[in-house]
Amino acid sequence: MLKINEDYLKLRGSYLFSDIAKKVKKFETENPDKKIIRLGIGDVTLPLAPAIIETLHKSVDEMGVKETFKGYAPDLGYEFLRNTIVENDYKSRGCEIYPDEIFVSDGAKSDSGNIQEIFSTDNVIAVCDPVYPVYVDSNVMAGRTGSFDELNGQWSDVVYMPCTAENGFCPEIPNMEADIIYLCFPNNPTGEVISKDKLQQWVDHANKTGAVIIYDAAYEAYISGENIPHSIYECEGARTCAIELRSFSKNAGFTGLRLGFAVVPKDLVIGGTKLNSLWARRHGTKYNGAPYIVQRAGEAVYSEAGKKQIKEQIAYYMANASYIYNGLKDAGYEVYGGTNSPYIWLKTPNEMSSWEFFDTLLSKAAVVGTPGVGFGPHGEGYFRLTAFGDKDATKEAVERILKM
Amino acid sequence: MLKINEDYLKLRGSYLFSDIAKKVKKFETENPDKKIIRLGIGDVTLPLAPAIIETLHKSVDEMGVKETFKGYAPDLGYEFLRNTIVENDYKSRGCEIYPDEIFVSDGAKSDSGNIQEIFSTDNVIAVCDPVYPVYVDSNVMAGRTGSFDELNGQWSDVVYMPCTAENGFCPEIPNMEADIIYLCFPNNPTGEVISKDKLQQWVDHANKTGAVIIYDAAYEAYISGENIPHSIYECEGARTCAIELRSFSKNAGFTGLRLGFAVVPKDLVIGGTKLNSLWARRHGTKYNGAPYIVQRAGEAVYSEAGKKQIKEQIAYYMANASYIYNGLKDAGYEVYGGTNSPYIWLKTPNEMSSWEFFDTLLSKAAVVGTPGVGFGPHGEGYFRLTAFGDKDATKEAVERILKM
Repeated sequence: MLKINEDYLKLRGSYLFSDIAKKVKKFETENPDKKIIRLGIGDVTLPLAPAIIETLHKSVDEMGVKETFKGYAPDLGYEFLRNTIVENDYKSRGCEIYPDEIFVSDGAKSDSGNIQEIFSTDNVIAVCDPVYPVYVDSNVMAGRTGSFDELNGQWSDVVYMPCTAENGFCPEIPNMEADIIYLCFPNNPTGEVISKDKLQQWVDHANKTGAVIIYDAAYEAYISGENIPHSIYECEGARTCAIELRSFSKNAGFTGLRLGFAVVPKDLVIGGTKLNSLWARRHGTKYNGAPYIVQRAGEAVYSEAGKKQIKEQIAYYMANASYIYNGLKDAGYEVYGGTNSPYIWLKTPNEMSSWEFFDTLLSKAAVVGTPGVGFGPHGEGYFRLTAFGDKDATKEAVERILKM
Repeated sequence: MLKINEDYLKLRGSYLFSDIAKKVKKFETENPDKKIIRLGIGDVTLPLAPAIIETLHKSVDEMGVKETFKGYAPDLGYEFLRNTIVENDYKSRGCEIYPDEIFVSDGAKSDSGNIQEIFSTDNVIAVCDPVYPVYVDSNVMAGRTGSFDELNGQWSDVVYMPCTAENGFCPEIPNMEADIIYLCFPNNPTGEVISKDKLQQWVDHANKTGAVIIYDAAYEAYISGENIPHSIYECEGARTCAIELRSFSKNAGFTGLRLGFAVVPKDLVIGGTKLNSLWARRHGTKYNGAPYIVQRAGEAVYSEAGKKQIKEQIAYYMANASYIYNGLKDAGYEVYGGTNSPYIWLKTPNEMSSWEFFDTLLSKAAVVGTPGVGFGPHGEGYFRLTAFGDKDATKEAVERILKM
């Protein structure tokens, strides 16, 4: 008899950002005169840089001419893009990564949701708390998380690594078994980073215990500080224990264009099997590559003009981050992140819950943010604002918050 | 201790088309002077139609301007595209399908690989033999297929439905339990179709037994005959038992642009749960939408100019199909398909095996096709040629084959 995947039914409510969208839609309908400022979802607002637009036009033209038309892309992605990634993101930082260890995809959300598939459902996952919901939800759907405890808001079979003000939002290495460790730095949602020394400890731990680290570096372009790794492969030994996920969404505004990649080193071998081969098999069987024109656009991100232009975009967003961070701090808020990251993580005032603060902010200031508890129990009492908004709107949002 | 997904190791060799690519590459290296003609992989060769190119340029321009820039797309896809699909593909054929039953994706390969996820791993799948490998492989990876029998080339827990010359390559309804039934018409690889009456029998069977039909209609644009359904929803009762997968790859040449959609009717309820909600949850959690510019390109496929232009492209390919079909038939080959489909399915001459014929064709005629056995044991002794090549190259290929 046909049965559904019962693990899907265990999922809590619907996806965080869908919940927020519903609340905002309701407010919008009831308050058609109010101008809502959205600093909630991590979506960019600047248009694609001129170098990227130019390349898109050029490659669209190629698709319209028989001699230059491109059909199915190579399984792993076009060589021109994989080579460019290796040169710019890895070789230039002294990381040993090869083009056939790069898997081009339609984005880090897909990769972070799909990567768990190549592991046994018996494995134990460890996640930061708070955490980007996709890591946990995709494991719930695979049946890896046990049952949900309504009281503490946690899954029975997941190892949670609290990220709190006390530990500088950098998790402690867990003292229980954890086979698949998800780390994200600069962190979503806290906006905090990890030092190279501390990340080296994680790599050493993973190599010692035989765990694998899924390292989400989607926000690396926002790092400006010293001794903060842009890639986990800056750490010694990471080739034998880490998979890295990267995105073009936040550095180059590809949220609506869709491009990312996973790095799976060939030295990452579990029980005699190369994870690189498993991921290649998944790519070859269930995916058909990112669009040619989008892969060309990705290449343009690394061109001289592209680099210059996206640097300006990042500076624009980081000026927003600085404005939010300083504005709220000066007004007495307890704030984190915002220095090497486009996210500002603030403690809600007066012991308000995250959703109470969400509702207050929406109703009193018409500003949308993301309730910290949506990222996990240790996010309760916190709130995330993003620097991806328009400059003037961001300033107005801060002013409205300060006036509340 | 970290373990891999052992089911991945059960997969047979590598993906069919990767194997072919390797053989062709070897031949190319050893015979640099020979001009290879590729009628193997089902990839199109005509450039994108002018109406689509025009729309791509227009929407690329939108992405370069702040006021019209688009970030994350709605989970299910843009309304403009879902509405257009409903109007053109369903309402116009009298099918009751609504926009919130359409899930826009990056292609039918992803959808046909991912759809099994929403079902229990206990379910039994039934597939045609021969069959598009993704249906089976994605179920192998999920642990749903049991063990592989080297002798008969079949998986122990899969129900195989032979498609042979005797049954006109249209499978019989299986007399054993089958919970998830994969059907693809016009069929890949045989190029044969199903009549509306016969498809109605499948729908009735599924409704009676509580099975679900995954109906892959990626090639529907090639149907020209009467009483051949373009959609399974032309059959009464399909809303309670069928999911349909569609592609823009073959009708509009999107193999390198990536766009498709799944239709999951809200009436499809299993044990009280709507499959529409489960698939929505998967989309929301593990996917972030097809690029805006590609969704606009998809909309252009249905514009007046777009429809006219892709009709011409289909006519071009079908002229190739006719040339291959008639050329081989006149020369005494036993040939199928090629009338309502871009695939020609031929019986290998002289009791040759599929791979023997592949090697002969490659070495003697420098023509690449696809060995039938790559699609399943009942494909042994057959061979697939596609009509997606260049017109002159296709003619030359047929001449070379006839001269062998």
